[in-house]
Amino acid sequence: MDLNSIFYPKSIAIVGASTKVGSVGNDIVKNLVQQGYTGNIYPVNPKAETLYDLKCYPDVNAINDDVELVVIVVPAAFVIDVLKQSAQKGVKGVIIISAGFRETGNVESEQEIKDICIKHNIALIGPNCLGVINAENKMNASFAMVMPKKGNVAFISQSGALCTAVLDYAQKVGIGFSKFVSAGNKAVVSEVELLEYLANDPETSVIAMYVEQLVDGDKIIERARRIIHSKNPKPIIVIKSGKTTAGASASASHTGALAGNDAAYEALFEQAGIIRANRISELFEYIRVFTHNPLPNGRHVAIVTNAGGPGVLATDEAISNGLKLAKLSDASTQLLKEQLPQCANVHNPIDLLGDAKADRYQKAFDILLADDNVDSLAVILTPQSMTEIEETARVIIETQKKTNKPMVVSFVGGTMVSPAIKLMRESNVSIIGFPEQSIKALAALTQFTELKKREYDGCFVFTDVDKKFVKKFFQDARKQGRTSFPEAEALKVLEAYKFPLLKSTVVTSRKEAEKIASTVGPLLAMKIVSEDILHKTEAGGVLLNVLAQDVGEKFDLIMKTVQEKMPQAKLDGVLLVEMAPDSVEMIIGSTRDAGLGHVIMCGLGGIYVEVMKDVAFCLPPVSKQDVYRMLSKLKAKKMLDGVRGGSLLDVEALVECVGRLSQLLIDFPEIKEMDINPIAVLPKGQGVRVLDERIVIE
Amino acid sequence: MDLNSIFYPKSIAIVGASTKVGSVGNDIVKNLVQQGYTGNIYPVNPKAETLYDLKCYPDVNAINDDVELVVIVVPAAFVIDVLKQSAQKGVKGVIIISAGFRETGNVESEQEIKDICIKHNIALIGPNCLGVINAENKMNASFAMVMPKKGNVAFISQSGALCTAVLDYAQKVGIGFSKFVSAGNKAVVSEVELLEYLANDPETSVIAMYVEQLVDGDKIIERARRIIHSKNPKPIIVIKSGKTTAGASASASHTGALAGNDAAYEALFEQAGIIRANRISELFEYIRVFTHNPLPNGRHVAIVTNAGGPGVLATDEAISNGLKLAKLSDASTQLLKEQLPQCANVHNPIDLLGDAKADRYQKAFDILLADDNVDSLAVILTPQSMTEIEETARVIIETQKKTNKPMVVSFVGGTMVSPAIKLMRESNVSIIGFPEQSIKALAALTQFTELKKREYDGCFVFTDVDKKFVKKFFQDARKQGRTSFPEAEALKVLEAYKFPLLKSTVVTSRKEAEKIASTVGPLLAMKIVSEDILHKTEAGGVLLNVLAQDVGEKFDLIMKTVQEKMPQAKLDGVLLVEMAPDSVEMIIGSTRDAGLGHVIMCGLGGIYVEVMKDVAFCLPPVSKQDVYRMLSKLKAKKMLDGVRGGSLLDVEALVECVGRLSQLLIDFPEIKEMDINPIAVLPKGQGVRVLDERIVIE
Repeated sequence: MDLNSIFYPKSIAIVGASTKVGSVGNDIVKNLVQQGYTGNIYPVNPKAETLYDLKCYPDVNAINDDVELVVIVVPAAFVIDVLKQSAQKGVKGVIIISAGFRETGNVESEQEIKDICIKHNIALIGPNCLGVINAENKMNASFAMVMPKKGNVAFISQSGALCTAVLDYAQKVGIGFSKFVSAGNKAVVSEVELLEYLANDPETSVIAMYVEQLVDGDKIIERARRIIHSKNPKPIIVIKSGKTTAGASASASHTGALAGNDAAYEALFEQAGIIRANRISELFEYIRVFTHNPLPNGRHVAIVTNAGGPGVLATDEAISNGLKLAKLSDASTQLLKEQLPQCANVHNPIDLLGDAKADRYQKAFDILLADDNVDSLAVILTPQSMTEIEETARVIIETQKKTNKPMVVSFVGGTMVSPAIKLMRESNVSIIGFPEQSIKALAALTQFTELKKREYDGCFVFTDVDKKFVKKFFQDARKQGRTSFPEAEALKVLEAYKFPLLKSTVVTSRKEAEKIASTVGPLLAMKIVSEDILHKTEAGGVLLNVLAQDVGEKFDLIMKTVQEKMPQAKLDGVLLVEMAPDSVEMIIGSTRDAGLGHVIMCGLGGIYVEVMKDVAFCLPPVSKQDVYRMLSKLKAKKMLDGVRGGSLLDVEALVECVGRLSQLLIDFPEIKEMDINPIAVLPKGQGVRVLDERIVIE
Repeated sequence: MDLNSIFYPKSIAIVGASTKVGSVGNDIVKNLVQQGYTGNIYPVNPKAETLYDLKCYPDVNAINDDVELVVIVVPAAFVIDVLKQSAQKGVKGVIIISAGFRETGNVESEQEIKDICIKHNIALIGPNCLGVINAENKMNASFAMVMPKKGNVAFISQSGALCTAVLDYAQKVGIGFSKFVSAGNKAVVSEVELLEYLANDPETSVIAMYVEQLVDGDKIIERARRIIHSKNPKPIIVIKSGKTTAGASASASHTGALAGNDAAYEALFEQAGIIRANRISELFEYIRVFTHNPLPNGRHVAIVTNAGGPGVLATDEAISNGLKLAKLSDASTQLLKEQLPQCANVHNPIDLLGDAKADRYQKAFDILLADDNVDSLAVILTPQSMTEIEETARVIIETQKKTNKPMVVSFVGGTMVSPAIKLMRESNVSIIGFPEQSIKALAALTQFTELKKREYDGCFVFTDVDKKFVKKFFQDARKQGRTSFPEAEALKVLEAYKFPLLKSTVVTSRKEAEKIASTVGPLLAMKIVSEDILHKTEAGGVLLNVLAQDVGEKFDLIMKTVQEKMPQAKLDGVLLVEMAPDSVEMIIGSTRDAGLGHVIMCGLGGIYVEVMKDVAFCLPPVSKQDVYRMLSKLKAKKMLDGVRGGSLLDVEALVECVGRLSQLLIDFPEIKEMDINPIAVLPKGQGVRVLDERIVIE
């Protein structure tokens, strides 16, 4: 599958080209003809002679030329025929604009489209989309009227209707695009393929996406990581809708896709190193800052302002978003003291005072940008009576040309600051009206520096697991119609995957019990073993904290009690389990997201799972760093690290367990959900112990 | 003190009026003369004859007329003399523009200013401010160049430098002001007095503030509540900087004020019913939505869009901000089905589809606004090929004129949507570029509806407390130089304020112990009593879970053990304390914010205080509702309500304890911090028990 046929076709046929002005089939031909595409254009319309001075053809086969890309605009019922013809003709790229497939419940036709494309190795965009624009070769194969400015941003949108708004807004604020894709239902080409293509697209240096649902989380992670760790890393910025349940269900009825759980997406983005924007405006702000700035070396920002209040608000926003206020070098502080008025605040945020003119900004910039402790600069100006608004803008423009540190700028105001804002925008300064927003975008830029620095070892691979056993175990169970495995059975699966379990053994006599007890542990739990007893505790079949030397006596007690309470039950013996030592109880487990697949959860266990909801997520397969990052998001991490002088716990063993869980999930996609709750985390060096578990398969 | 002298003076003297164009002392006279103020203006400048065709006076006393307001612009060193002259002259209002007081460490002069004003009942704005504007009588007694449009928004700013930016931006987006106050150091007139004045100002219907620090939290709460529960309630919208520690310290160096802890401010705003904006842009967005809309009856919003994606993003934002998607009536749904195309989504968010023209919007509006299930409307438009942008704007304008439900509108795009946005802005439609922002502002509007509905009983008052005892207790302690009271001593204070304590008694012999044990409780803790023993546990002086019948035997044991381990210690007996029943352990306590005063904290107790930080705050004096609202912010609230089938706990008793704590703090301002941790909350009807406590006074 070659996406060049989509973005750089030598010839394009438009099937469904229409003579009716204002119709989609007319707009696309018009856009291709009038906006500068220089390849061959073949309108296909059996009823028309010519369209925009081009000859019309009755069908694709009638075209006496190779056709590289076909744009299909005919009603849904005819799409498959056209697609088949195109395949016969040897077409390599297809864009299906037409709607009426998965989004309206017509899943079968969409599957057929997919099958045809895969069989013939056709790159397909859509169906149900606006089309594709390549600003480099001026190809507007869409029904959006605007040819955007050429730039270095690739934009992929799952919403067609958002595309036109994005193009219009981008034009206003001066964002240029390399590739612009309305991805539609993503039957064949999804974000996975597009990321792969854009990784190597020399025209693209920023990738932005609007997403409602993703599939194949693992592939997205893999592609995104490759982009970030390549020689030519590119930031990937995503806005994902359907955060809330109501939002997700609105999204589902909109695209026909089951929208995923937001926590799973949050985990995906984190693991993939994808930067998430939370609002449309934020997406644009991030794009603007990314396109016009070098990356900072680190998190330390210097804020320069002529107004204290906005400087404080900017500081709040910086800290809240993971930036740090640069601590200036002594030399810089001294220089600032010498060159600024006495009342000025020479400590970061640097307050130049209300009467600061352009030269005072210039002095501060020169000192701060020369300071190695400063990684980036945020500039704030409010129009006061002495302020030289445009002159200061010019100082900023010139300063940005000279520095290799990123700068974001806010001129707060309206009419008075408008000309200066226009000037800076034209000179590629990252000017964003309000300081909080510009700082947040700077924080995103800084986040990318951190993402690039991330190390990756590979994902966990354990060779000591018994995959065969689990395979057979699940097969046998399914034969018996069983898909849910409580404690004792799930235990066997965990045992095969070498999870650390509590020592246990079944004894059938007092004598055996006495003999074996101390090898199980000094302190034991005893549980009756009987297929006839569901609720062991109620039957008097559970004793806790039994000393090893008392086990014989208690064996008789437990047998006698249960026999008295449930005389009909057949008793098979008593399970001796070592008592778990004092520990912090965590939970690890997994659920499955309809789109993304398995999602691993980790958090504080026991009753606090429900109350505190102190949980974090990641997607398998996981690396050691993935798991540590997941744990670092937990408040309970402090308990693992030893709170209030408590001892450091065996986090490494917990991490390994998550790795084993990840491998189990990868090996057995049929696992629908599982809980290991609680898993006891012991002091460092003593490992963890699974205390209870539950698995459900399909 | 009469603020009318500030806002509606019949005559104004400007002391420090300057002939130097561009200086502050010149600008103010110019602004008064040229922007339409019709009262008498008296420039005071001993060296000048005239200024802007007005006669200049050597000093205030030389003016042959009553002077109602004096604006002082002379250097700090001369301010107090001018103020004294003004007081002699009988001036009722003063604005001190001059800086150089508290913000630079000159606390003494500021105190003197304050004393003079209080003595002579002068309303004083400043010092260190930009001045005051009243758009109604065109009085610009400030050095900001812009006379804002007259409107219904009163704006109070602690940052002078922000004022000019606000005026400039407001002009651009069409916000008009009733009163505009740069409050400066707030030596005399602070937000408290301004709120009191604005409550009765017929020109003002929205109050907006930029705040860096507040004092007298209780007064702010009282004034704000009065405004919200008056016949003519007005929303109070605040942006507070210094959220983060770094932000707060930047703020401190900026205003010379110790910025408060953000959690305390969050509690203040919650309790006062003040709506908090988190960014400058948000403040403006809230103002715009508040000024142009009636209040909704409830939380149920209908979203109408021609683009699915932005509709989903708006839904996410709505849910995240406490709004609910209106469930349309069957009749409405039926009507929508009849009048919209088949593919349109007739369930909220209502997707009119990409080809929706103005008439389709009109139909949807008519149906939705007639539906009683719909409290408010959010409209989204993206410019697509068939979209009638301006015509739709006109439909919106006309619709808004007819409805008594609030509407917010987003036209997403740039150049294409600009004319329509201008049109709507001029017609007072709440048009905000991006749907997330407009929804968030609608949520703030809805929040005000909820705030108005809040019920207030009075604050807790307990007559059964022994204030005299505690007063003497603290006095005696201070005489001995003691300010910190651990467990046993703090207990006495709590006892006087009738906190529910565990039963306890001191026994000095085995016989006495045996006799009294069962009256203390069936299960007891025993603790050695000795002034010589600091660490009771290490000395073997603590036994837990002792049955009442074993107390005699254990009395001998504990005495013997301690005597052996610490033979020099003088033993005074053994404290018998009933063991606390199984319960959820919470913490209640207080700290003191430098500006706001006492702050009450409540949260999950024990080790989880530190790890989970599941705590919430409020300010004394508290009402029952205040405390319930505070508790509702805790995740631990679920545990109090009985999680996992656990029993409902005695929340009411906990609430009463917080009330008692509140009264204790009000009665004793000298309490610096106190912790009641843990406080055991027992099943409903069984109350709470204080298990440990600590008090520190000044």
